[in-house]
Amino acid sequence: MGDPSLPVAVDAVGGDRAPEEIVQGARRAADAGVPVVLVGPPGLVGDPKGLELVPCTEVIAMDEDPGPAVRKKKDSSLVRAAELVRDGAASAMVSAGNTGATMASALLRTGRIKGVVRPAIATPLPRLEGPPAVLLDSGANAECTPAMLVQFARMGAAYAEARFGVTGHSVALLSIGEEPSKGSALVKETHQLLSDAHDLSFRGNIEGRELLDCPVDVVVTDGFTGNVALKSVEGALRFVMRTLLDVLATDDETRRAADILMPHLLPVAERLDPETVGGAMLLGTRGVCVISHGSSSAVAIDNAVRVAHDLAARDLVADLAAALAS
Amino acid sequence: MGDPSLPVAVDAVGGDRAPEEIVQGARRAADAGVPVVLVGPPGLVGDPKGLELVPCTEVIAMDEDPGPAVRKKKDSSLVRAAELVRDGAASAMVSAGNTGATMASALLRTGRIKGVVRPAIATPLPRLEGPPAVLLDSGANAECTPAMLVQFARMGAAYAEARFGVTGHSVALLSIGEEPSKGSALVKETHQLLSDAHDLSFRGNIEGRELLDCPVDVVVTDGFTGNVALKSVEGALRFVMRTLLDVLATDDETRRAADILMPHLLPVAERLDPETVGGAMLLGTRGVCVISHGSSSAVAIDNAVRVAHDLAARDLVADLAAALAS
Repeated sequence: MGDPSLPVAVDAVGGDRAPEEIVQGARRAADAGVPVVLVGPPGLVGDPKGLELVPCTEVIAMDEDPGPAVRKKKDSSLVRAAELVRDGAASAMVSAGNTGATMASALLRTGRIKGVVRPAIATPLPRLEGPPAVLLDSGANAECTPAMLVQFARMGAAYAEARFGVTGHSVALLSIGEEPSKGSALVKETHQLLSDAHDLSFRGNIEGRELLDCPVDVVVTDGFTGNVALKSVEGALRFVMRTLLDVLATDDETRRAADILMPHLLPVAERLDPETVGGAMLLGTRGVCVISHGSSSAVAIDNAVRVAHDLAARDLVADLAAALAS
Repeated sequence: MGDPSLPVAVDAVGGDRAPEEIVQGARRAADAGVPVVLVGPPGLVGDPKGLELVPCTEVIAMDEDPGPAVRKKKDSSLVRAAELVRDGAASAMVSAGNTGATMASALLRTGRIKGVVRPAIATPLPRLEGPPAVLLDSGANAECTPAMLVQFARMGAAYAEARFGVTGHSVALLSIGEEPSKGSALVKETHQLLSDAHDLSFRGNIEGRELLDCPVDVVVTDGFTGNVALKSVEGALRFVMRTLLDVLATDDETRRAADILMPHLLPVAERLDPETVGGAMLLGTRGVCVISHGSSSAVAIDNAVRVAHDLAARDLVADLAAALAS
């Protein structure tokens, strides 16, 4: 087990709404009893709202090229947060900043779990009932090999169990048809390897239309396809929500209808909202690292910090190592 | 120009709702003045509702392996429909059946437009206002090269002009970030080639979240990614629609609210419905070939037949050939 008294290191200057919403979210988590430290340049963070601030001098911008940025900016909030985890001064790190740089910091400073070819980003896929499913890789690796995808399946299954209590490890491969003959060379080879992996309950291919209310617990794909698929779902949901809100605001009659429907619609919208789910998780590095949405509010950061703390306390890294050794 | 008196050949036995809805849709198009012939085994088609039926003896099932099926079933409705186009007895073909077999029939019987490496499937992306954008390849080629994607861009632009009257040819590449450095090796190389293609107005990369209400007229991607992205959007839209209908049916109060909102929601739902857009188009073969959704109703087939007839009459194939020669 991890040490639950260790704080979660929060990148105070990453994300579209940093530092205000980030600090506010960290404060909420602290008020709920989760130990937290902020990391960032004091002049930029402003009021730390009574939280400990680990000072640094640099910031990696949202659009900076991750590799060079992490190598050059050794005193950036992301690199320092990863070092706190590496040195045992923090249990986990959370950032809503540059995703690639968050990944690179965690990977370069904490290293990989033994045997991991490449870390992957796992993102929750909301369901109307029950715990979310997990999709990975959702963007860490634009190019993947079949062996990497099989590792992602094992890490995803262990993560779904640690995070959502989902046992059974049902796994599917994202493709363009259910038949094993459909898809790219990568998908066809991976299909064969997953069929042979007896520690996983492989259910075959699924298509993009099954990502919401997903029939399996873990969906495996390369980081390019996964990222496009998730953003396609996200874009479609936003489009419909925006359109629906426009319709509800048409006139007095529709506004009265809105008053009736809102109590029914809000719980659904909340289940679909990435804010409430607690962020994506980098799997495969020797530390817990939560990658929160770039537009994260205080609510999103609060949730992300709680998830990070909980998974570090349960020793997610040990679970992943065990799953990969099987 | 093509000959507008030539009939559109409709595969009467392809699709989940064949033959009833297919024949019904063809009948509607004929009633509106579009010449149509049905193709299929008479015993399976049943009542042709007064339309000419070109008889054949075989059917390629929805889940059959396309290549072998087309080679073996030389008297199938799909192969015979493609032969009618090849022989100048039909102006175009329409099928809601096995997509791969439709493609293979068209390709093997009518051949490629000069210079085309591989045909692609172009699918309309609905917008709330104005004509749809076009995404290709939406599933014909799971593996693509950069040169193929550049051809898809040119064919897509010519098609958007012929079909939707969209000039300007604004093109974007589907990727996982706007920066040219983001994405797979395929995407990065294609980005460079498209930047150098001065006949196209290349606007750079776009992400999955921009597919609805798309800011460009043509979105280019490989057939694996395109298929996953489209089905992800489709799945998300269906999920929300289903959820919304459930909410509206909760009790008497919500049903009254539904009565108020429906007149506002239906036009939006209609714009988003693939049924009304007239199907996907196979681009690159020497004939017009519309691939309608597997679940096509009579409305979808009626629209698909009209689109096929219109594009054949305008000589879409000549437009595509000219665009590729530029």
